[in-house]
Amino acid sequence: MPKLWLTSLEVSTPQEGYELAVLMARVAVKMTQPSDDIRRKLRTVYEQDADALIASSSVVATHFATVAAANNYWKESQC
Amino acid sequence: MPKLWLTSLEVSTPQEGYELAVLMARVAVKMTQPSDDIRRKLRTVYEQDADALIASSSVVATHFATVAAANNYWKESQC
Amino acid sequence: MPKLWLTSLEVSTPQEGYELAVLMARVAVKMTQPSDDIRRKLRTVYEQDADALIASSSVVATHFATVAAANNYWKESQC
Amino acid sequence: MPKLWLTSLEVSTPQEGYELAVLMARVAVKMTQPSDDIRRKLRTVYEQDADALIASSSVVATHFATVAAANNYWKESQC
Amino acid sequence: MPKLWLTSLEVSTPQEGYELAVLMARVAVKMTQPSDDIRRKLRTVYEQDADALIASSSVVATHFATVAAANNYWKESQC
Amino acid sequence: MPKLWLTSLEVSTPQEGYELAVLMARVAVKMTQPSDDIRRKLRTVYEQDADALIASSSVVATHFATVAAANNYWKESQC
Repeated sequence: MPKLWLTSLEVSTPQEGYELAVLMARVAVKMTQPSDDIRRKLRTVYEQDADALIASSSVVATHFATVAAANNYWKESQC
Repeated sequence: MPKLWLTSLEVSTPQEGYELAVLMARVAVKMTQPSDDIRRKLRTVYEQDADALIASSSVVATHFATVAAANNYWKESQC
Repeated sequence: MPKLWLTSLEVSTPQEGYELAVLMARVAVKMTQPSDDIRRKLRTVYEQDADALIASSSVVATHFATVAAANNYWKESQC
Repeated sequence: MPKLWLTSLEVSTPQEGYELAVLMARVAVKMTQPSDDIRRKLRTVYEQDADALIASSSVVATHFATVAAANNYWKESQC
Repeated sequence: MPKLWLTSLEVSTPQEGYELAVLMARVAVKMTQPSDDIRRKLRTVYEQDADALIASSSVVATHFATVAAANNYWKESQC
Repeated sequence: MPKLWLTSLEVSTPQEGYELAVLMARVAVKMTQPSDDIRRKLRTVYEQDADALIASSSVVATHFATVAAANNYWKESQC
């Protein structure tokens, strides 16, 4: 994780916003478990565990809501 | 999953918005577990598991809130 | 589930909004598990499981927030 | 549960709003498990289960957010 | 719990808002499990249980969002 | 934890906002389990537990939404 990883919430498209949300969901995990080795091991387990995959998707959804609001939902104008 | 899958949050009706929310909930799972085979296996388990079904529905609800806001709740005028 | 089931988020009263939220919570489950038979079996289990009932109620709460916002909380005027 | 139980989200004080949120969290449970007997049995279990109590509190929090917004957070003027 | 415990969401600082959110998370538990004795017993278990501690923190986060909005995020002016 | 730990929600960058959200997620845990020793023991377990790591990340996401709104998503002008 580079030292500066979140300089802005503004991105060009919803899809980039979604990718940012995925990153944001992962960084909190990295901050609590900084070891790449342990995270890799955990990953081999949870990527085969439907409950964990759904829980991860839920965190992405919460972050995406924030990113989308930050970008005014990528609407042309704000009236 | 096509390379471009989320070009806009604006859809014509609440129901299309709901379907988009379902897609958005699933893509995060795909990004963590890209193997179609493994996801298919996981699915045969979790689609018979009430807890997992309810948890999935919760992710859809969070994304739907975002999509609905993006479409100003499909009210006639937005300005 | 009829083909068109979510044509509008606008309903006359908070209680109708709550009922719509309940429906919205259930449809995601139906979309993942379309078999009426399997859902009926799951239901006999989870309707006796406090954790699942509370989790369902949580999904309803998230959808209700969206429906309530869509109806401007059923306030007389918007000032 | 009376037939009409949610006629308005507007209440006079935050505390009444909190009590409404508690009611809203419970009604979804009642709609999925209408039997008073079964709910009473479930209750004797989950009211001794910290996880279930915390999960219930989470549903109350989500509904309270909606009720609070509906009442403009009980600020003096709303316009 | 005094009879009147939530007369206003307005507090002077974010930290007081956080403390209010903690209180709001706990009151729902008290309303479902009014016995001080049983809650004390439950507490000795769940305060040693990381999952329960994290789940409690999640409820605080939801209430804090509401309290923060009620206080306009403690910004000087509202423009 | 210093006596005053949350004097403002306004921070200069999204990344500082994220770090504040991480702090806010942790403080609720500290308030329920004040013993540094017990928290340290819990931590050695849950930092190896994917479910707990994801649940923590979810709390961060909820707090980040609040912090981001408080900073108007770090957009140039706020008025």
